[in-house]
Amino acid sequence: MSDLNQINDQLSVEIRNLNDFLKKVTTTDIALINTLSSHMIDSGGKRIRPIIVFLISKILDNKKQVIESAAIIELIHAATLLHDDVVDQSDLRHNINTANKLWGNDSAVLVGDFLYSRAFELIVEINRDKVYKILAETTNKISQGEVMQLMYKEKIIEDKNKYIDIVYLKTGKLFEASALVAMDIAGESSNDWARDFGKNFGIAYQLRNDFLDYFGDDKQTGKNIAEDLSEGKSTLPLIHSYINSNDSDKEVIRNIFNNNPASGADTLRDIFDKYKSDFYTLKEIEKYSQNAIDALDGLNADSRQPLIDLTNNCCKRSK
Amino acid sequence: MSDLNQINDQLSVEIRNLNDFLKKVTTTDIALINTLSSHMIDSGGKRIRPIIVFLISKILDNKKQVIESAAIIELIHAATLLHDDVVDQSDLRHNINTANKLWGNDSAVLVGDFLYSRAFELIVEINRDKVYKILAETTNKISQGEVMQLMYKEKIIEDKNKYIDIVYLKTGKLFEASALVAMDIAGESSNDWARDFGKNFGIAYQLRNDFLDYFGDDKQTGKNIAEDLSEGKSTLPLIHSYINSNDSDKEVIRNIFNNNPASGADTLRDIFDKYKSDFYTLKEIEKYSQNAIDALDGLNADSRQPLIDLTNNCCKRSK
Repeated sequence: MSDLNQINDQLSVEIRNLNDFLKKVTTTDIALINTLSSHMIDSGGKRIRPIIVFLISKILDNKKQVIESAAIIELIHAATLLHDDVVDQSDLRHNINTANKLWGNDSAVLVGDFLYSRAFELIVEINRDKVYKILAETTNKISQGEVMQLMYKEKIIEDKNKYIDIVYLKTGKLFEASALVAMDIAGESSNDWARDFGKNFGIAYQLRNDFLDYFGDDKQTGKNIAEDLSEGKSTLPLIHSYINSNDSDKEVIRNIFNNNPASGADTLRDIFDKYKSDFYTLKEIEKYSQNAIDALDGLNADSRQPLIDLTNNCCKRSK
Repeated sequence: MSDLNQINDQLSVEIRNLNDFLKKVTTTDIALINTLSSHMIDSGGKRIRPIIVFLISKILDNKKQVIESAAIIELIHAATLLHDDVVDQSDLRHNINTANKLWGNDSAVLVGDFLYSRAFELIVEINRDKVYKILAETTNKISQGEVMQLMYKEKIIEDKNKYIDIVYLKTGKLFEASALVAMDIAGESSNDWARDFGKNFGIAYQLRNDFLDYFGDDKQTGKNIAEDLSEGKSTLPLIHSYINSNDSDKEVIRNIFNNNPASGADTLRDIFDKYKSDFYTLKEIEKYSQNAIDALDGLNADSRQPLIDLTNNCCKRSK
């Protein structure tokens, strides 16, 4: 199995072209836009969504509009990150300070709008109705997922399916869109496998984020540990423990979540251990990863291997 | 000459349909989105951009896609207001509390993204390449104008042309887009007059905002007086005084702008009076209004009168 570095090596030309293209389309005569755009582009993102576009394009032997499409999706992703970090008041991502921390909320909001609208400008050049439709719908669904998450801020979500719905909207949708756009620019109208792959991969990817937030190593993840907790966000480990715990543990979870997020992460991890919520989260990641991989069944074994490797790597990643 | 109320009365069916359509397309199953969307839609906006669409559509005798196009433009406008008020930390607009004041920056940022992307979803249904292109470019230019303004925050702009460039991007562009979209949905490919009208009207409109910020009545404008000053924004009256003042007055202006915006508005107005910057601002508003009206010269007198009335009213308005 190729690891993420090997996948990146195999796509080194595409990724270099992507980075050059991103730089080109975000360079304006407005210094602050260039600064924040560069910060987003150079800040160590894994380019997972573009990689989906590249790998599916290779399967379909398509070379047209690949870099452009991948860039549009990465711009939308970067815009959502800028706004998310304002909403969450985050100060660290990939081990470096966030744009809102460095340049203020005002810059992050406005340059987020710049990147969003720049993406929509570039879609004009792709000139494919379906790509436009997919991405307009996707960005709207992302915002819906983010608002739903915000409505649950400082509330414990007690319904796992509700939580998965939010994860699908805020993360799964853009993974799904990456796969669907790659199909459309290749002229492929039948896209069920791509949709199922992208959706399930995206959900698994976000659940891995949830897992790493509690059980990862902050030096590797580049974020503060238990940040979801300190931001008042319920994620899968907490939701699982809360649903399954006895009344006194429920009380402890509620108390930490509502009153002591800063100091309660260790106690919470002990409770997760008691209810095997870490194990449950890993099983759920495994389930959605496997759904993603199963969606590739109709492809021949050689073609699908890079997508399988990508999924497995991302869903077992430690950073 | 019809006043704004009379223009509204003449368009009462269109405006009612617009409001119904806006309500419909912003109603989701997510309560927080509905709440903020309603707040924006019901909060006493003047619907100037939709009115441009309605009046030009009447001139061209077009009834197709008029409400939808007007709604898309108003959604983009509402999204920019949500984000602007976060950026400016404004708490009052149209005499009511802003969304960020009532529901927090996080909600305002995310529902702004919802309204932006909802607009782009609706453009799919218009299904006209040019409308898409106009609005993608426009939203990108608006964000550029906003970022430029932010870069000058707490700096005095000493170049009037630079300032007009910013005004064109942040306000003029969406007025221009309103006119251009109205032309395109009517199947009209020749659009120079509409472009010139929209651009100049938009600039005049924003300069009237600048004027009212210092010389208006807060009960009528619904905003705090000299808010631009307290937000560290240079606008035309201040720029004119600063460029034309002697060294000691320059020093006074700088000191108020940098150190005492909260208490310095009265002194500043005295300086504006000394250098006739209020008068100059009114002349500039008059100039851009007249440019807008002159752009309508090729139309017959009856057709253009409502657009002339709209321009004159907006550029002499007190609220």
